[in-house]
Amino acid sequence: MERKMERNAPALPQSLALPEAVKLVEVGPRDGLQNEARHVSAAVKIELVDRLSAAGFANIEAASFVSPKWVPQMADGAEVMGAIARRAGTVYSALTPNMKGFEAALAAEAGEVVIFGAASEAFSQRNINCSVAESIARFEPVAAAAKAAGLRLRASISCALGCPYEGDIALEKVADVVARMRDLGCDEIDIADTIGVGTPLRTQAVMEAAASVFPRERLAGHFHDTYGQALPNILASLQAGIRIFHASVAGLGGCPYAKGASGNVATEDLLYMLHGMGIHTGVDLDQVIQAGAFISEAIGRPYGSRVGKALLERGRRQECV
Amino acid sequence: MERKMERNAPALPQSLALPEAVKLVEVGPRDGLQNEARHVSAAVKIELVDRLSAAGFANIEAASFVSPKWVPQMADGAEVMGAIARRAGTVYSALTPNMKGFEAALAAEAGEVVIFGAASEAFSQRNINCSVAESIARFEPVAAAAKAAGLRLRASISCALGCPYEGDIALEKVADVVARMRDLGCDEIDIADTIGVGTPLRTQAVMEAAASVFPRERLAGHFHDTYGQALPNILASLQAGIRIFHASVAGLGGCPYAKGASGNVATEDLLYMLHGMGIHTGVDLDQVIQAGAFISEAIGRPYGSRVGKALLERGRRQECV
Repeated sequence: MERKMERNAPALPQSLALPEAVKLVEVGPRDGLQNEARHVSAAVKIELVDRLSAAGFANIEAASFVSPKWVPQMADGAEVMGAIARRAGTVYSALTPNMKGFEAALAAEAGEVVIFGAASEAFSQRNINCSVAESIARFEPVAAAAKAAGLRLRASISCALGCPYEGDIALEKVADVVARMRDLGCDEIDIADTIGVGTPLRTQAVMEAAASVFPRERLAGHFHDTYGQALPNILASLQAGIRIFHASVAGLGGCPYAKGASGNVATEDLLYMLHGMGIHTGVDLDQVIQAGAFISEAIGRPYGSRVGKALLERGRRQECV
Repeated sequence: MERKMERNAPALPQSLALPEAVKLVEVGPRDGLQNEARHVSAAVKIELVDRLSAAGFANIEAASFVSPKWVPQMADGAEVMGAIARRAGTVYSALTPNMKGFEAALAAEAGEVVIFGAASEAFSQRNINCSVAESIARFEPVAAAAKAAGLRLRASISCALGCPYEGDIALEKVADVVARMRDLGCDEIDIADTIGVGTPLRTQAVMEAAASVFPRERLAGHFHDTYGQALPNILASLQAGIRIFHASVAGLGGCPYAKGASGNVATEDLLYMLHGMGIHTGVDLDQVIQAGAFISEAIGRPYGSRVGKALLERGRRQECV
């Protein structure tokens, strides 16, 4: 037995072509909270951002300067941005749908402004009653102003992995939308699986389409976990050379109309996977779990990270075997 | 723009070296239900197995012939095995801890008997007060009897990705335990992440260690989703050439002592990923979702599959965008 073991020594791990480090964008304070029906106070939002800053994120999506009529939850963006304890090394981003929003973001000293568009014509027509190309063209003034002000400019492309109205999106369409955002001067472009329907091979195909027109190292993956596919899609994206990922503390997010819909991939679960593979993030998992427990309690929701729940339970339970 | 698109046509999907088909072992009726505190009637178990048979699984773990003193929930194994509507093409498995269990499984016309051991010495010592090697040696009579009776023999190796008492398990130890099970004549060997702590690179390393002493195509991956890592670990296993996976309808399972611990990977979520990548399973997702909704209601638990919840909600909700 022993001799056989020596002759057949286990092989070394396959590399999966993984990177040494990735950049994480924590979107919980904005994408995570914006659909909460119950108002979350500015004080809670500020504490959440401060806890996330302390955890070490390179980028936190902290506010949205949309009309309060659209998204009342985000009406206190200026107050939040004005009160957070900014950490050197963290970029604080704000969503800016128009010039009014841009001016507010500039006044609030956002480090990055975020514009957006859909990869789906049906989605664009139903939601804003214009074509994708028209919706992106409307961002030209914001993009120009961001450049003039020396701010980072990021674009988020929703429904890139599928649309509730038209299903799969043609790869050429994704590339076209990415190219339009590139032509506006975007520094970074997010490929978002807004409804969480993607699977790993499709994810790689979409990332390859995007990378055919924009530098791969400045593409980001934004995955919702509605169908539980976010982590395998991120693993597949890593293998396709993607190095920036979005996640939401406690898996905040989702849709107020859909009981079954879940939010963004939980930051804690993503950190567990990345750190388990030796990939550096600069983020402290324990501090994120504390932030996740804090915000979940503050908004009265069950804690939505499997890793967070498991690690919080560990120690105060009889280990199960 | 158009010309540029043509010159930079999106690349084809990377293959990830995926197989055309995999074999799924549905473990919900046994591994999923065994820790339920409230008794589940034989009638419910029978209906669950029948629904799963109709869905097309190649293998269903349907019963456990352990002492009713150990696992009272499984005391009605003979009744269940005697009443299910057996489908041609489905193997019905039963856990057999000893010769008494084997005789019961044989009488119940199980198509496969399952023996088990841990990859962790600490786990083995604490739970059954003997070494891993001793615990496996005790299965020699069962293994011999299974071979003599022409039954398939499967071994499940728990804690292969980590142990609650000793953490990581040495790869050599995993290979040693796999080799001991091989020497008993096992047709198939499960590599189980019992406490769900594994991540993809470690998973590949453990699978490679197992494959160094046993044919890769007869290794199975059994992943719990406690830390949300089951699907990425399965994706990594697929890339390491593993072709058999366990899953539990509705994500049944987990630990009665641990509120935060979740069960096996939900079959529905795994099917969604596999089918989304064009991998054949022979299993009908819609029928599994109906079975998952049935058993969740029958045992009074929230439905634990993200895919099941999302697809059941779809159609009766306002689509969220």
